[in-house]
Amino acid sequence: MSEAVRAPQQDRSRATRQRLLEAAVDSLADVGYAATTVAVVAARAGVSRGAAQHHFPTRADLFAAAVEYMTEVRLAEIRAAQLPAGPGRTEAIVSLLVDVYTGPLFKAALHLWVAASTEEPLRAQIVRLEERVGRRAHRALLDVLDVSERTPGVRETVQGVLDMARGLGLADLLSDDSARRRGIVRQWSRILDQALLAPGV
Amino acid sequence: MSEAVRAPQQDRSRATRQRLLEAAVDSLADVGYAATTVAVVAARAGVSRGAAQHHFPTRADLFAAAVEYMTEVRLAEIRAAQLPAGPGRTEAIVSLLVDVYTGPLFKAALHLWVAASTEEPLRAQIVRLEERVGRRAHRALLDVLDVSERTPGVRETVQGVLDMARGLGLADLLSDDSARRRGIVRQWSRILDQALLAPGV
Repeated sequence: MSEAVRAPQQDRSRATRQRLLEAAVDSLADVGYAATTVAVVAARAGVSRGAAQHHFPTRADLFAAAVEYMTEVRLAEIRAAQLPAGPGRTEAIVSLLVDVYTGPLFKAALHLWVAASTEEPLRAQIVRLEERVGRRAHRALLDVLDVSERTPGVRETVQGVLDMARGLGLADLLSDDSARRRGIVRQWSRILDQALLAPGV
Repeated sequence: MSEAVRAPQQDRSRATRQRLLEAAVDSLADVGYAATTVAVVAARAGVSRGAAQHHFPTRADLFAAAVEYMTEVRLAEIRAAQLPAGPGRTEAIVSLLVDVYTGPLFKAALHLWVAASTEEPLRAQIVRLEERVGRRAHRALLDVLDVSERTPGVRETVQGVLDMARGLGLADLLSDDSARRRGIVRQWSRILDQALLAPGV
């Protein structure tokens, strides 16, 4: 097969894969784990079930790849965001982070985590996924905050912010928590600024 | 019926109810929402299914009452705890709080919240429950920290700590996160002490 023929096929294959990953996250977030079968995701993506199974041998493979891919996309957006300099920068960063944890990606991950907690071998696969995405989110937040975890206390300070963001995501699952959340993001951004000035206190 | 006969019956009824509530939380935490039927809870509590249905007309009633009851028990324990005075007090409080969010009660609530997110009318019932238990936890934490939310910033500072605890609970769902958690609790207790000294900063 010539290069000219192969390249468009690879593009199509990549686009199909991407549609499946996006559809998997959206479906998990909307209807939960039990209702998100491979057939449902394939239909949502406008892809045949056979094509879906060609890309992802198991449902767990599809879900893990979907959460990992969308995490990369969301973290890349945060890294590329136009952030204000000086005061307001930390709050802008924390807001962007918390937006991720209150969007479909977090809801999808939550359904997956809870399903995995009572279902082997999904649990083992999701534990590995959780480690990877946790490390990437931690690294991205260190980078955009422009702090180093070689400074004592910074690592734990930043990890606590990620945990707070997770908690805010959970609090937004059943009802719109945005008003309460805004106040917390503002206050914790101030606290974070102070804490990062003297992290080893 | 004489008082002498009625009182022991009321005691037995209260004990039965309590065993059902504890069994419901333990079952939700262990096997999740779908597998926690009223029959499973009744068997776990050593109570007949009929008796369980006498106490709780629906499965949602049982689960909501169970999470509310166990929240009261756990918060009462925190309020009654012997806490060190001076340095170390805040860390002791945050540790106790985080212990609740990494125990069976939080896991049970998490299964219930996630199930409710795709299931009406459970959702509406759990939204009301979430508001009540959220308010009680917030009030208990203000009280044991001995701070007032009339001071600007205190409300949001303390709410953020509850959200961080929720996030730490989620991070402990699939694997033992205690080592990472210890460092975060220590660091954020220091930060919280500073923040509560100058909450409006």
